[in-house]
Amino acid sequence: MIYTITLNPTIDRLLFLEGTLTKGKNNRLRKVAYDIGGKGHHGSYAMNQSGVKNQALGFSGTINASKLEKILSDKGINYDFVEVYGKPTRESYVILEEKVGGSILITEKGFNITDYDIGLLFEKIEHKVQREDMVLIAGSVPPGFDLHDLENLLKQLKKIGCFIACDLSGEALKKAVEIGVDFIKPNQFEVQELIPSDGNFLEPIKELSKKIKYVIVSLGKDGSVCSHAGEVHQVSAPTVELVNDTGAGDCFVGTFLASLSLSKSLAECLSLASACAANQVQYNDSTTFNIKDARKLQKEVTVKKLS
Amino acid sequence: MIYTITLNPTIDRLLFLEGTLTKGKNNRLRKVAYDIGGKGHHGSYAMNQSGVKNQALGFSGTINASKLEKILSDKGINYDFVEVYGKPTRESYVILEEKVGGSILITEKGFNITDYDIGLLFEKIEHKVQREDMVLIAGSVPPGFDLHDLENLLKQLKKIGCFIACDLSGEALKKAVEIGVDFIKPNQFEVQELIPSDGNFLEPIKELSKKIKYVIVSLGKDGSVCSHAGEVHQVSAPTVELVNDTGAGDCFVGTFLASLSLSKSLAECLSLASACAANQVQYNDSTTFNIKDARKLQKEVTVKKLS
Repeated sequence: MIYTITLNPTIDRLLFLEGTLTKGKNNRLRKVAYDIGGKGHHGSYAMNQSGVKNQALGFSGTINASKLEKILSDKGINYDFVEVYGKPTRESYVILEEKVGGSILITEKGFNITDYDIGLLFEKIEHKVQREDMVLIAGSVPPGFDLHDLENLLKQLKKIGCFIACDLSGEALKKAVEIGVDFIKPNQFEVQELIPSDGNFLEPIKELSKKIKYVIVSLGKDGSVCSHAGEVHQVSAPTVELVNDTGAGDCFVGTFLASLSLSKSLAECLSLASACAANQVQYNDSTTFNIKDARKLQKEVTVKKLS
Repeated sequence: MIYTITLNPTIDRLLFLEGTLTKGKNNRLRKVAYDIGGKGHHGSYAMNQSGVKNQALGFSGTINASKLEKILSDKGINYDFVEVYGKPTRESYVILEEKVGGSILITEKGFNITDYDIGLLFEKIEHKVQREDMVLIAGSVPPGFDLHDLENLLKQLKKIGCFIACDLSGEALKKAVEIGVDFIKPNQFEVQELIPSDGNFLEPIKELSKKIKYVIVSLGKDGSVCSHAGEVHQVSAPTVELVNDTGAGDCFVGTFLASLSLSKSLAECLSLASACAANQVQYNDSTTFNIKDARKLQKEVTVKKLS
């Protein structure tokens, strides 16, 4: 079983404009749609496509609970949240202009988490997570959930002895490295922040992998680099037409962990993850991909041992 | 009793940004607030400040009914809507940048109104509105409510024999003039569209007022012109610091009709309306004004007979 933990989930409200956004006029909308937000939920969606059982954990507000639940159910995501009474799950506004690539993103902060709420999450984890399980913690942390709380969460999981994957950034990523987890996915800049080096890219990755079983560094359209068991592998990304690359990293992580849980070889895990992410960027939302099409793309992916 | 009819109400969602809106970055919000949207609702708010009993009618969706009702109740607005099952009342997104004047407005279209819904509104009006009442129809019309429906609504009200005020624009305004109502508030451009003339401003207003008891033309910070009972009056606007002029026209109309219903003199109706609107533009939302402060401003307003 895999558990994904999204500490600061969001509901993505997609605003499809007529024309382009202009100040001083009434910008009319063609349509409004909703999509799942929160990196953990995207990870869960990807795991589902690989047919791997998983459950999304985290905090949700009761005020708009039915809206979040409908979006997750529509995407087939199994969840069990700590419900925080009288608060709304935050929304992100994704403004999509007509005939213009990319999007304008506006995000709410999210409601304040109390120690009581955090206690309820820890209790849930205590009852659910087993030694043989995997846990993915992904995305930003909400107000009220500080580094000390993250440390306690990681220590609780280490005590259980499960596989811990963290798709975090900034101070939260540093904390995960300090405590020692099984999987991280920093980008190039984050690697430099974690272990400063004079331009040598591989040394800090090797250094990180002394402590962390799987270190995957995403390089966007140039693919990724994975360090594991003393070896570094370069993974290519299939060339595709980019429509919207939001969520591609989450798709990669979800697919990688799903394959790993099925005891696939490292090369298989990496190439399928790279192919699924490449398939996902061809859709205009930040979730959807087709695993059958991805399996065709997978044949184009090369996994090359660097050292 | 005054009834305000908002055919296409909206919930204003005010998005207060950290900094200015920038594409390609995560634009974080400082806070989110809600305000009443819909010109009729703003009119009702203004009537309340004058202590005049009124009720807001129109269509509302059941999906987010509790949200709309909370906002209206917070502002003290009495309402009785035709509830349209399984639809959401539309939202307008008002993006407010930090330390930048004005706002970026994005509006949803609103849900589709059926003949059945329109029938329910007509029934409500039949039961409520009396000959001695006033009715204000204000704002845009929703999808499904066409000019023929507006014509039927106006004819129904004319049959009842109540005072009919219309704060409409475009084809809907033309229809109101064609049917003949008691009050309209076009701007200069709309006057030209209704009765084209070669730059002479007063002639088309006089022409309109042959058919319509009160014709008020708003001139923004230059005040307004009112044609009534064969006379044209110029109304000044007090000089104030402009913060946000959205809703100033609705404040004017609501206050004017409230004063008229209290049988105040035309000069009193016009000067208080002008003062309230001037007070309202000093607030950063599109609703709030203080009638006590407005009464002080009222002393500065001049109402001068032009012809």
